[in-house]
Amino acid sequence: MSLWTLQQVAQHKSHSSCWVIIKNKVYDVTEFLPEHPGGAAIILKYGGRDATSAYEPIHPPDALDKNLPASKHLGFLSSESVDTIRQERLKLKKTKDELRVEFARRRMPPLNRILSLPDMENVAGQILSHKALAYYASASDDEMTNSENARAFTRFFFRARVMRPVAQCDPSTTILGFKSSIPIFVSGAALAKLGHPDGELNITRAARKEGIIQMVSSNASFSAADIIGSADHSQTLFFQLYKHRDDDIAEKRVREMENLGYKAIFLTVDAIVAGNRERDIRSPWVLEEQETGPQYFEAGTSDELKDDVNIFGTAGALVANDDRDMTWEKTIPWLRRITRLPIVIKGIQCVEDAVLAAEAKVDGILLSNHGGRQLEYSLPPLEVLHSLRQQRPEVFSKLEVYIDGGVRRGTDVVKAVCLGAKAVGLGRPFLYAQSAYGEPGVSKIIQILRREIVTAMRLVGASTIQDLRPEMVQRVDWHPHVPAKL
Amino acid sequence: MSLWTLQQVAQHKSHSSCWVIIKNKVYDVTEFLPEHPGGAAIILKYGGRDATSAYEPIHPPDALDKNLPASKHLGFLSSESVDTIRQERLKLKKTKDELRVEFARRRMPPLNRILSLPDMENVAGQILSHKALAYYASASDDEMTNSENARAFTRFFFRARVMRPVAQCDPSTTILGFKSSIPIFVSGAALAKLGHPDGELNITRAARKEGIIQMVSSNASFSAADIIGSADHSQTLFFQLYKHRDDDIAEKRVREMENLGYKAIFLTVDAIVAGNRERDIRSPWVLEEQETGPQYFEAGTSDELKDDVNIFGTAGALVANDDRDMTWEKTIPWLRRITRLPIVIKGIQCVEDAVLAAEAKVDGILLSNHGGRQLEYSLPPLEVLHSLRQQRPEVFSKLEVYIDGGVRRGTDVVKAVCLGAKAVGLGRPFLYAQSAYGEPGVSKIIQILRREIVTAMRLVGASTIQDLRPEMVQRVDWHPHVPAKL
Amino acid sequence: MSLWTLQQVAQHKSHSSCWVIIKNKVYDVTEFLPEHPGGAAIILKYGGRDATSAYEPIHPPDALDKNLPASKHLGFLSSESVDTIRQERLKLKKTKDELRVEFARRRMPPLNRILSLPDMENVAGQILSHKALAYYASASDDEMTNSENARAFTRFFFRARVMRPVAQCDPSTTILGFKSSIPIFVSGAALAKLGHPDGELNITRAARKEGIIQMVSSNASFSAADIIGSADHSQTLFFQLYKHRDDDIAEKRVREMENLGYKAIFLTVDAIVAGNRERDIRSPWVLEEQETGPQYFEAGTSDELKDDVNIFGTAGALVANDDRDMTWEKTIPWLRRITRLPIVIKGIQCVEDAVLAAEAKVDGILLSNHGGRQLEYSLPPLEVLHSLRQQRPEVFSKLEVYIDGGVRRGTDVVKAVCLGAKAVGLGRPFLYAQSAYGEPGVSKIIQILRREIVTAMRLVGASTIQDLRPEMVQRVDWHPHVPAKL
Amino acid sequence: MSLWTLQQVAQHKSHSSCWVIIKNKVYDVTEFLPEHPGGAAIILKYGGRDATSAYEPIHPPDALDKNLPASKHLGFLSSESVDTIRQERLKLKKTKDELRVEFARRRMPPLNRILSLPDMENVAGQILSHKALAYYASASDDEMTNSENARAFTRFFFRARVMRPVAQCDPSTTILGFKSSIPIFVSGAALAKLGHPDGELNITRAARKEGIIQMVSSNASFSAADIIGSADHSQTLFFQLYKHRDDDIAEKRVREMENLGYKAIFLTVDAIVAGNRERDIRSPWVLEEQETGPQYFEAGTSDELKDDVNIFGTAGALVANDDRDMTWEKTIPWLRRITRLPIVIKGIQCVEDAVLAAEAKVDGILLSNHGGRQLEYSLPPLEVLHSLRQQRPEVFSKLEVYIDGGVRRGTDVVKAVCLGAKAVGLGRPFLYAQSAYGEPGVSKIIQILRREIVTAMRLVGASTIQDLRPEMVQRVDWHPHVPAKL
Repeated sequence: MSLWTLQQVAQHKSHSSCWVIIKNKVYDVTEFLPEHPGGAAIILKYGGRDATSAYEPIHPPDALDKNLPASKHLGFLSSESVDTIRQERLKLKKTKDELRVEFARRRMPPLNRILSLPDMENVAGQILSHKALAYYASASDDEMTNSENARAFTRFFFRARVMRPVAQCDPSTTILGFKSSIPIFVSGAALAKLGHPDGELNITRAARKEGIIQMVSSNASFSAADIIGSADHSQTLFFQLYKHRDDDIAEKRVREMENLGYKAIFLTVDAIVAGNRERDIRSPWVLEEQETGPQYFEAGTSDELKDDVNIFGTAGALVANDDRDMTWEKTIPWLRRITRLPIVIKGIQCVEDAVLAAEAKVDGILLSNHGGRQLEYSLPPLEVLHSLRQQRPEVFSKLEVYIDGGVRRGTDVVKAVCLGAKAVGLGRPFLYAQSAYGEPGVSKIIQILRREIVTAMRLVGASTIQDLRPEMVQRVDWHPHVPAKL
Repeated sequence: MSLWTLQQVAQHKSHSSCWVIIKNKVYDVTEFLPEHPGGAAIILKYGGRDATSAYEPIHPPDALDKNLPASKHLGFLSSESVDTIRQERLKLKKTKDELRVEFARRRMPPLNRILSLPDMENVAGQILSHKALAYYASASDDEMTNSENARAFTRFFFRARVMRPVAQCDPSTTILGFKSSIPIFVSGAALAKLGHPDGELNITRAARKEGIIQMVSSNASFSAADIIGSADHSQTLFFQLYKHRDDDIAEKRVREMENLGYKAIFLTVDAIVAGNRERDIRSPWVLEEQETGPQYFEAGTSDELKDDVNIFGTAGALVANDDRDMTWEKTIPWLRRITRLPIVIKGIQCVEDAVLAAEAKVDGILLSNHGGRQLEYSLPPLEVLHSLRQQRPEVFSKLEVYIDGGVRRGTDVVKAVCLGAKAVGLGRPFLYAQSAYGEPGVSKIIQILRREIVTAMRLVGASTIQDLRPEMVQRVDWHPHVPAKL
Repeated sequence: MSLWTLQQVAQHKSHSSCWVIIKNKVYDVTEFLPEHPGGAAIILKYGGRDATSAYEPIHPPDALDKNLPASKHLGFLSSESVDTIRQERLKLKKTKDELRVEFARRRMPPLNRILSLPDMENVAGQILSHKALAYYASASDDEMTNSENARAFTRFFFRARVMRPVAQCDPSTTILGFKSSIPIFVSGAALAKLGHPDGELNITRAARKEGIIQMVSSNASFSAADIIGSADHSQTLFFQLYKHRDDDIAEKRVREMENLGYKAIFLTVDAIVAGNRERDIRSPWVLEEQETGPQYFEAGTSDELKDDVNIFGTAGALVANDDRDMTWEKTIPWLRRITRLPIVIKGIQCVEDAVLAAEAKVDGILLSNHGGRQLEYSLPPLEVLHSLRQQRPEVFSKLEVYIDGGVRRGTDVVKAVCLGAKAVGLGRPFLYAQSAYGEPGVSKIIQILRREIVTAMRLVGASTIQDLRPEMVQRVDWHPHVPAKL
Repeated sequence: MSLWTLQQVAQHKSHSSCWVIIKNKVYDVTEFLPEHPGGAAIILKYGGRDATSAYEPIHPPDALDKNLPASKHLGFLSSESVDTIRQERLKLKKTKDELRVEFARRRMPPLNRILSLPDMENVAGQILSHKALAYYASASDDEMTNSENARAFTRFFFRARVMRPVAQCDPSTTILGFKSSIPIFVSGAALAKLGHPDGELNITRAARKEGIIQMVSSNASFSAADIIGSADHSQTLFFQLYKHRDDDIAEKRVREMENLGYKAIFLTVDAIVAGNRERDIRSPWVLEEQETGPQYFEAGTSDELKDDVNIFGTAGALVANDDRDMTWEKTIPWLRRITRLPIVIKGIQCVEDAVLAAEAKVDGILLSNHGGRQLEYSLPPLEVLHSLRQQRPEVFSKLEVYIDGGVRRGTDVVKAVCLGAKAVGLGRPFLYAQSAYGEPGVSKIIQILRREIVTAMRLVGASTIQDLRPEMVQRVDWHPHVPAKL
């Protein structure tokens, strides 16, 4: 391998020849430009120079090795050039957002003062970079669906039963036959490195300790191999599949996951195109304005600005190659053929499709609208669950039903389980917890949920998950006061 | 033609002789005073002097030529007088509102940062003069109906379908047989010059580029001839008719439009008298108070102030001569007799009248309450559409149904189309877009809507307009959180 | 008659001998103390001194003459004493509230800038003394019922009809056979002198000019004779009767009204005890605190304060002698016996009592909860009207039905008339209008309502009151946005 | 008995030997540590020193005598040591919260300016220590249930009846056969000494004066003996039992209460584990931050903090030994066996359990969710009452039904009684009243409620409790405006 200087690399910053430096290694990405899911433009922006800080938080460490042939690994940077980069980094003035985050991190409360998931979200809202928070928190259009997911829980009250023995109370259950200490699981939470250098690994380690199951996203910022590598061998992990439009590539991916030891495939069907997450898209402009103050434009120039933004932000990049032509007839049999793993459809949004899924004989369905990040005005999953219970209760005996979206309290979990959910997924809360406190933060919110679930079970008169019955929940016809956070 | 001095003109400022100067020409408007739709008082206010700045933004350039006989065009102003006017205009101190607008225009974001129609409305709210914004934004009484039009969309959720092929997605449709690239059209948006010197022409040009149809208002600030003149010959335009109380005048107008090439007549029936738009009426007082500070009045004088305001503001002037005695029996046959064009009734507000329209065999109905500018507490058009679908679904096969009012997002359009609307009209958004960015602004919002519509279609599982079905939409029985703008 | 000095009068300030000075006359009110509807305490507070400023705004000028025998009119104050009083009044420092009112009155907008009843209420809110506003605006407990009365109108939308001839539009109607230019009347609005020295007379004069009927309250600050004296002889006035517990006194009152020329008796049945109007009760404390700043109390003394407030404020005083044992069986026949006038029951609050009233063969009922000033959580009159229309429509053919409470817009009136109300009463708006602008203010709001009513009639497709039908109004099942004022 | 010095006591502050000083007496609590309901940690915190100020407000005066054998009463503190303690207490700087309270107490309004229970709550909110307010006001999770309890009343309106004789109006009733002057009672309000040194005794004395019944909590800050000792011998008191998990201990407690003269047992069934009252738990941290300003933590240390908080705060301590295995089959017969007193089940939360209670032949049920302090999203008691009336009206004839939770106005009481409640309990209002004004405060709010109840009865047309009928109340299908306090 050769050694390169910054001056040499700097020659290569165009479509015809584009090199980048990542962690002091030099790569020729010219041929990769058209294939990059995030588009060529963003790579060219860093062409001919060091791209480490932009690359690292959103790519698995092995991404380059997997996507670039060895011949494009051109070699290392010379030691003087390494020094130059280091010194320039030191000279960089911190941005206002970086200073804000530093200050906020020093004022974080000790972990034992976090009493609830909203507490944790509040801390994360302080200490995350603007960019990370915009990616984690954003949802489609006016973020109505995201808000409605959570608000739906406020319409379901308990018909609590008293005078039942609950001194012993066991909240454990199984998901697809695998043991879970409480009826929750980690639902596809991606790009965890944006919030913490250990990213998804924080979640994997805490999930092991606390005895719950993690569903790992295709878009995790660590590779599926790294994540399962950090897990205990007895630990259960599921894989969230974004199916590639090319069946062969998709098959390779599925087989790889099965070999790695993932125990189920959650096929994502509600994100075939990117949702319109304006907060995420707007994030770089907000930061720019923070640095430079409000901007002035000469009258008449506004319509001459040429380079358009990537209108789908991070989300668009992630789904660019996904299969938009999946069908019940074609896709499920194909998947059955290539894997022995249980199959769960993630993203069912109405009763009709739940019925079709049962007819397609999948093993489970996850009622979900992707945390309100895809179709604005998709029905809240809890409402779909309630309709399914009322209109087609037989579905619950044909497959396992899960929901995610808007779950923040133990009572939320208990309501969903009463209505027939086998388990309940949470996504953003895990991202927030690991961003703020790493692995102990993740453990903390699982412990909080366990305590809240057990308290709610006892107070509704249930000592096991089986005791939680539909008739213990009542959908009210008034509109309860909604806590300020929702 | 003679030349006149300011001193000469200044002699003529009474009911018995009233002259005005418009763009350095002198006109005798004495005999026109009683016919002016806006009333004599407003002309007399400018009698004997230059009226250009008040006249221009709200009249088509050919208005005087069409309404005044040649004998009343008295000639030109002398060059010294022209100079005097120019110099006095230079000496005029800018008003606070003009300064505010100038400042805001310099801070307008570049067009590519406009992500949504609410973004565009927000910019327009900054850069429009108070008077223009008051005219565009105002609605009746407490502006409740206007707000409810938009809020109605928040009660309709999607029952999204997954596992359907949507890689190819075609949002195009036809309106009255004419091609439209997406199921929207420009719904009567008048006085566009208040916001931009090119006014309605901005909309016409962008509509051509983006392949949508413009319905041109009788009250446009350019003449119907100018507007269609600026259009491509293959471009479709419809004409919004405010029927004059004199059938002969009305007939002349309709025939003129047919000859000019307009392709359909939208007969306006919900604005036979002016709505009570208080924000519009109050606008001059607000500006006055801005200039002079709060005013003090001597006790006891308040009831002696004589000259009453034109209580119906701009709106009143526009409908003063309209026909208030239209009937199904009389008016539709009359209109059929005088034109071969398709007829659409604009302003249907309940199921009963939709049925009557079908019986009268018109070609289409536009469910509309005039953007909440006429009858306060008229039902939201989306609710009327939903009731029509539920109670009288056969109407949809007898004529085309459109709605307007409160549409701001692609999901709004898709919901209405699911329920049976052939297309959806928007008014204010076009006025805002052209005011802020001219023609490119108008193109921008059409592109935004196209993107949002296609995304929503794919995520509900539709690859053509025909795939959008009533059962994909569910009216919910709870009250969703309403975004702050509504 | 004798002349008295201040020193002489000052001797008489106890239960055993209590004199007061009113407009320089001296009265012995010792024997009247136990009969005073407002209680003895408030008189004793002014015992032995000049009570003019407290007495005047809330008593008819003839109150003393009617209630005190001639022998208790002790004579006049000596001229030196009159001087002393005048000089002391000049030395009085104005209170903060008086200064605030003076300032606000100088900034009142000219009357032609009042566009709506809420505008008028806003001005009145500025220029009324705290005490007057507290009396006028206050309602029971948390003032919920008052607010709900108005909010009820927001749930009723129009099913507007188009293509109906409305060029001619006549809003006139009759009430109990008497002509009214629009379907509204003045509903018992008392103590008008608190807001303007001409008090109720302002209303009487404007009602004549505008052709509407005034219902005069038993508690008016002018006597029923004065009020009808200021009316045109062709003008219709009704009398609102608070029935005295002593039938003979009540009979005398009714006969007096009939002789004076009042044309109907509105028997008040919803105010047999005073409502709990906390804002009114609290009013003197607020003023005290304004003058002196926040007060400090020595710990422990708080429970030793002895003299309790008159817990029912002004309201309590007014109904102290009212009949709390009225019944359908006893009271209606009694009233029929003693008068030939039509009888209307004011304060019907549910369908059941509307039916009983029809069975008792009264001439009309006023669905009312006393403007929310009596029973908190009494149903909004508009809701009672709607229920009556749905459940017992035959009642409308047996007697005339009116409503009052929460009416602020022409659309409110038109909705009620559609549902079957023969006319709609307003109370507070008349008090506000006369307080701010005297008689012209009252005329103004009637003109505003006329304009709004005619506009709404035309836009719903009605050219006469008879054209307004129940099916033109739809009670919606969602919760419209409520304007900020409600 | 010996005399001890502070130095001697200070040696004993560990698990192996732990002494504390309470009011100058020295106790050896080593063996009691594991039995302390509040946990050992909190005692050890005060081990070896004076614990009086922490001990006093939350323990009955006889708690130590009852729980510690005589041999552990080690004797008195030497007089020098007593002096030392006194001097150190004098040197203690007041906390910001103490200063705030002192200041607020000096600005308390005189009692006669308290017009309503919300007024009283407002004063209490000012003058209570943060810790006391957090204990009194806190409720579970997001305090939604607590808020919903009160909001439920806003959905029930009156169908008021007029023309009924109500001059005589008697609001008295009986509860379990015992006379009550109005249909309210004191519902388990514990730890009253946190707000006032006389604590529950204030309530007992006022209850006697005003003729209402007090239910005394097991967790009162005075002993049950002290409380009944302060009562009149003719006065009725009920006992709220938290059943100990050991039947023998529980039996002893019940028999003791019967002997003391308590007239009924209210068996608490909705608080077998502690609710999650975050405001209460957070209270010490808030105070700490008030004293020291915002705190900074070194990055990385947050997860190393060791001593965890008592996650259930005060509530957890109080129920640690309660019976979590009660059943209808076992517990009710046991209780019947050991006492002749009437049995009421406190904490019924749905219709099904009300029916079971009737089948178990208890004497009464209190529909209650513990003031929203236990299970978040438990149905509002008023809604349960309404459902019971609609679905199982026969239950009302088998036992007495009461409700508590959210009652603040006389109209609330009257609504519940209309629907079938024999009486209505209030808790927090009594704590607030005694905290602010002692016994006269408690009398005051009872008098206010009496006045409000009588006014409401008369205005709905009822002269006795029996006249209040279900059909006088209507649950509305709209959502009334909710006063700011709820």
